[in-house]
Amino acid sequence: MSVGTIFGVGLGPGDPDLMSVRADRLLRGAQHVAYFRKAGRTGQARKIVNGMIPDDATEFPMEYPVTTEIPVSDPRYNELLAGFYEDCTARLKALSDQGQNVVVLCEGDPFFYGSFMHLYSRLRDEAPVEVVPAITGMSGAWTATGDPITWGDDVLTVLVGTLPEPVLAERMTQTDALVVMKIGRNIDKVKRALTSAGLYDRAWIVEYAQMPNQTVTKLSEACDGITPYFSIIIVHGQGRRP
Amino acid sequence: MSVGTIFGVGLGPGDPDLMSVRADRLLRGAQHVAYFRKAGRTGQARKIVNGMIPDDATEFPMEYPVTTEIPVSDPRYNELLAGFYEDCTARLKALSDQGQNVVVLCEGDPFFYGSFMHLYSRLRDEAPVEVVPAITGMSGAWTATGDPITWGDDVLTVLVGTLPEPVLAERMTQTDALVVMKIGRNIDKVKRALTSAGLYDRAWIVEYAQMPNQTVTKLSEACDGITPYFSIIIVHGQGRRP
Ligand SMILES: C[S@@+](CC[C@H](N)C(=O)[O-])C[C@H]1O[C@@H](n2cnc3c(N)ncnc32)[C@H](O)[C@@H]1O
Ligand SMILES: C[S@@+](CC[C@H](N)C(=O)[O-])C[C@H]1O[C@@H](n2cnc3c(N)ncnc32)[C@H](O)[C@@H]1O
Repeated sequence: MSVGTIFGVGLGPGDPDLMSVRADRLLRGAQHVAYFRKAGRTGQARKIVNGMIPDDATEFPMEYPVTTEIPVSDPRYNELLAGFYEDCTARLKALSDQGQNVVVLCEGDPFFYGSFMHLYSRLRDEAPVEVVPAITGMSGAWTATGDPITWGDDVLTVLVGTLPEPVLAERMTQTDALVVMKIGRNIDKVKRALTSAGLYDRAWIVEYAQMPNQTVTKLSEACDGITPYFSIIIVHGQGRRP
Repeated sequence: MSVGTIFGVGLGPGDPDLMSVRADRLLRGAQHVAYFRKAGRTGQARKIVNGMIPDDATEFPMEYPVTTEIPVSDPRYNELLAGFYEDCTARLKALSDQGQNVVVLCEGDPFFYGSFMHLYSRLRDEAPVEVVPAITGMSGAWTATGDPITWGDDVLTVLVGTLPEPVLAERMTQTDALVVMKIGRNIDKVKRALTSAGLYDRAWIVEYAQMPNQTVTKLSEACDGITPYFSIIIVHGQGRRP
């Protein structure tokens, strides 16, 4: 009996129309569909593929044992997550050993800050794994702003809101174009860093890029408060243009 | 009579299977297909869609008046290109005025260092324009290496090989993960910058990512000499991972 392949399939920013032809085909022919979610939630990745996967496909929701309840710096956080990824890996590997193909749903591009990477690094020497790249959330976000992100010689820097404020501020002063991901409760810190780098007035915040509830707002005109998980800050480059 | 829409359609890194479902649909229903190319060449974008566009679609190749014959710093370079973009814009606008839809082919994602941006900025207030985001060449490239580009808090910096060596070297020391695009004749400069930033031994070069002639090589093991237009250097981040 031959072994099955585990496909890490990037779904893109959220509009099913922006999935790749390959992702679309793999989903519509899927036998087993695995995806991460917060306990008790549907999960964004699963929502994106609603109505696309076969009725008789088996679903394997992988529920995070912890998300923001424990700080990332706490050693228990790493322990809990590592154990969780080991469990998921074992279950995916078992399906592959039985000759079954599995599609693992990934938001955006799997290899760009993706959760699937933690399964991939554990599975890659144990079973056949294929990764299908996809449109990143940031491409979805800058397209939504209606302005190009980089021109000519522009430097683009991608930061995550979880970095310390001084690091954020320093990196922000050293770039032409900027993307900030993973914002959420870090929004005030990110705003202070943007201000100290002189970029605050050029910043846009895109929530739910390419999803039905997408919003595009100048950061200086956005409401205060924690931003949703699916939000990205964009500062456009202003490089050379004939 | 209603006006037509000009669609800037991202094709992704090169494999037609990695185009979005929307791009695929727009191409297969296209009336007019416009694309940039070097005079006398087929053009990469046009090659990617071979066999996909309707036989009776009208093609509008937009031939660069200059590519690398004149240095970018020469004022004539800007003048020639600006005139060229004006001409292309006028022709696209005329089609739109006649009620015709036009698909403009874009390599990778249109808003990420793309040539279409020069038409877009001239057309956006003159005619209906829609941009279809796509998988970037860099997503295609890091996927091809088989290793994720960014983990946890990793900073990602995207540079172009046309920047001066000291700028390249400085930016390279300030990042965790790195992408260098537009390499070509800048390869030796880029290599020196990587060496001075201590990244040379971790760098990969991906030529023709996700195309039939794709190669993935450790930069230190790659042959000397000018790299092709479609090549990207990748240094993977090594951030936090439970
Ligand atoms: C764990 S990372 C995953 C990134 C994903 N692999 C990608 O390629 O975009 C999660 C972060 O991605 C960003 N993100 C992804 N998709 C998004 C979307 N459609 N709209 C807004 N933000 C998005 C948010 O900043 C979010 O905090
Ligand atoms: C003018 S920029 C266009 C970038 C494109 N809009 C994108 O999203 O990737 C051209 C550069 O993109 C990079 N590139 C784009 N697609 C590529 C591919 N499939 N393989 C390797 N490099 C690629 C090369 O570095 C090339 O010099």
